[in-house]
Amino acid sequence: MKFGGTSMAGTERIRRVANIVRRQAAGGNQVAVVVSAMAGETDRLVNFCREANALYDPAEYDVVVASGEQVTSGLLALTLQSLGQPARSWLGWQLPIHTVENHAKALIDRIEGSGLVAAMETGQIAVIPGFQGLSEEGRVTTLGRGGSDTSAVAVAAAIGADRCDIYTDVDGVYTTDPRIVAKARKLKAVTYEEMLELASVGAKVLQTRSVGLAMRAGVRVQVLSSFVDDDATPADDHPGTMIVSEDEMNELVEKGEVERQLVTGIAHDKNEAKIILTRVPDRPGSVAHIFDPLAKAAINVDMIIQNVGRDKGETDVTFTVPQADLARAQAMLNDRREEIGFNRIITDSKIAKISVVGVGMKSHAGVASTMFSALAERGINIQAITTSEIKVSVLIDEDETELAVRVLHTAYGLDAPDTVGDEAA
Amino acid sequence: MKFGGTSMAGTERIRRVANIVRRQAAGGNQVAVVVSAMAGETDRLVNFCREANALYDPAEYDVVVASGEQVTSGLLALTLQSLGQPARSWLGWQLPIHTVENHAKALIDRIEGSGLVAAMETGQIAVIPGFQGLSEEGRVTTLGRGGSDTSAVAVAAAIGADRCDIYTDVDGVYTTDPRIVAKARKLKAVTYEEMLELASVGAKVLQTRSVGLAMRAGVRVQVLSSFVDDDATPADDHPGTMIVSEDEMNELVEKGEVERQLVTGIAHDKNEAKIILTRVPDRPGSVAHIFDPLAKAAINVDMIIQNVGRDKGETDVTFTVPQADLARAQAMLNDRREEIGFNRIITDSKIAKISVVGVGMKSHAGVASTMFSALAERGINIQAITTSEIKVSVLIDEDETELAVRVLHTAYGLDAPDTVGDEAA
Repeated sequence: MKFGGTSMAGTERIRRVANIVRRQAAGGNQVAVVVSAMAGETDRLVNFCREANALYDPAEYDVVVASGEQVTSGLLALTLQSLGQPARSWLGWQLPIHTVENHAKALIDRIEGSGLVAAMETGQIAVIPGFQGLSEEGRVTTLGRGGSDTSAVAVAAAIGADRCDIYTDVDGVYTTDPRIVAKARKLKAVTYEEMLELASVGAKVLQTRSVGLAMRAGVRVQVLSSFVDDDATPADDHPGTMIVSEDEMNELVEKGEVERQLVTGIAHDKNEAKIILTRVPDRPGSVAHIFDPLAKAAINVDMIIQNVGRDKGETDVTFTVPQADLARAQAMLNDRREEIGFNRIITDSKIAKISVVGVGMKSHAGVASTMFSALAERGINIQAITTSEIKVSVLIDEDETELAVRVLHTAYGLDAPDTVGDEAA
Repeated sequence: MKFGGTSMAGTERIRRVANIVRRQAAGGNQVAVVVSAMAGETDRLVNFCREANALYDPAEYDVVVASGEQVTSGLLALTLQSLGQPARSWLGWQLPIHTVENHAKALIDRIEGSGLVAAMETGQIAVIPGFQGLSEEGRVTTLGRGGSDTSAVAVAAAIGADRCDIYTDVDGVYTTDPRIVAKARKLKAVTYEEMLELASVGAKVLQTRSVGLAMRAGVRVQVLSSFVDDDATPADDHPGTMIVSEDEMNELVEKGEVERQLVTGIAHDKNEAKIILTRVPDRPGSVAHIFDPLAKAAINVDMIIQNVGRDKGETDVTFTVPQADLARAQAMLNDRREEIGFNRIITDSKIAKISVVGVGMKSHAGVASTMFSALAERGINIQAITTSEIKVSVLIDEDETELAVRVLHTAYGLDAPDTVGDEAA
């Protein structure tokens, strides 16, 4: 079980978490719990580091920020004990959770699960601070923001857990953002690949890295809410969304537990920006001149379109980058203007990427054309298109985001049948 | 160097500390720094533990509260780096600082100093969180409140430091409380034994345990303030009080650096309470009936006086206990009333203990009689007396505390010559 910062914000909420955990244990399960720091605490600690040293040493940054999860792990163990439930905390260096690569964005290499399993077999609940690990040099590391999801999946893999329940402030994965479409439905299950595509295009329920790890390690993940739980209606009566392999998904469909859909969900992402370079010489290597320096600066280029320009031998190149990197990308391209040989840079942050995602696409044609015609019918202009095996994404004007999401949710038959609304109007 | 919670309260104050440390290093010294948590932080964490579990497990309590020093050690390392000074933090489990005995009040067993010394020899400043250690079972321990002073002395002993400078919010040890006597003088040096007596009777500059450890390990300790320091007048120009062995003290006196005094300081303690048991049978073993249960309950009995009672074969027994333990002691004695056989319990919290302390007493008689006659002259009634080799303590009415301290400060010639005031009037 993993609980996020909102669930751990203060001793009262930790008591609520302890009750959820205790009921799982009372149901005959051996339980390990991974916890985040109290909401706001990591920000407070990061801020201290910035004040201390603008160019902070990530090794010392890790020492400071890892303390937030240390506190909540101790407090949850104490609270479980107060409910009569044996429990103890296992810090990153105690298990240990071995990590490699850089401080502040370490990667989990391997976890020693044997001590944990032995303790759990005695009926003791193991409480593990998320986000933290131990470097090869014996120093404290952290996994980068949101790393506690990854800690939870990694611990689940290390101890061969039947399931990794990730409690968060939403109660599952929806067909689309319920704040935009009231008829959005909670999904009983999605595949790892669908979840990866949904997460990477803006449906931020789980950290992307944790989903990738779950897929590779075959950990069955459930996303559910810690806020629907009480003694009258425990969380077990409010199942969330299971994230499973394609094989398990097929079994669930065959058993009739999950309905087979062509499209599983619709995501939107307003955090991209568009860059157009005009009149780039249309010769071998010119595109490399554009994208090599961006790649080296770790600026993630997503969609790329090459249009034929007005004059022969020239072309306009359009691509998207994260909005946060736009200024840096623009400066870098201007520095290389001669080398690349473009005429003008045009940028636009008022764009949105809308994606339809579903493993059903693998075996069905026509998904993309449904998308294009549904958007065209409402006069929504498509600026660019990319596709993968289980996803079609289009770039549109940001102002049309909500309209596009509603139109597509209806077009793919995802609207919940039993609610009344005018979301698609 | 050791810095307390007031000195570490916030990133601005930590920058001030970093400057003091950097100047020590710039002076050609190898420096290790022990830090407390930010003022108020340990209370905040202890409070979380209480809220989580009133009967908290000290092992998990230690996990929670040790995080405060972890944060400040990382922040001081970061701040030193920002000043161009290489530095790194060494957590209790990393050195490690091996501890024994109970969680929440662990005792330092031994410290592995070799890694620290090797790093310090490269010019890197070692920053060590105080208060924390590692148990034999590999778990986080803490030393009890105020334990950071002990950590500092223990680290100094482990690395064979020339000096252990303890920065606090006072600038040294005074002949008496300067809030009571404006003519109080800062002492250039006191002996370990004097410091122990002064600390144990209310002059709370250093944790008593740390002074005992310094004495056993022969660590030269200096108490000084982190608040008198700036670039114009660095702390080195504001020396504090050295705490040294009696041999070194004699050398300082012979060199004329310190004046030989009969009495070094005058301390007062308002935290005791008096208990009188009337008409206790005057037979063998009756006193044991009183004090054995109190000792077993870890209630520290200080002064004991036995008066002859009104009737033959009976006696009144008077003794003092810490005010905080008075209710518990009273209940415990009432429970054993039959067994002990006393008539009434009379208690009084409105008392104070006044002590004159000085190694000079060892070789000079008449110190006690000077005390008694000076107090008698002002009509101050002495309720009880205890003495040790270097201390005479009397119990008086609490209302007369300040008067008594002033009278004795003058009587032993401790008033500073160059100030004008009427403290002794």
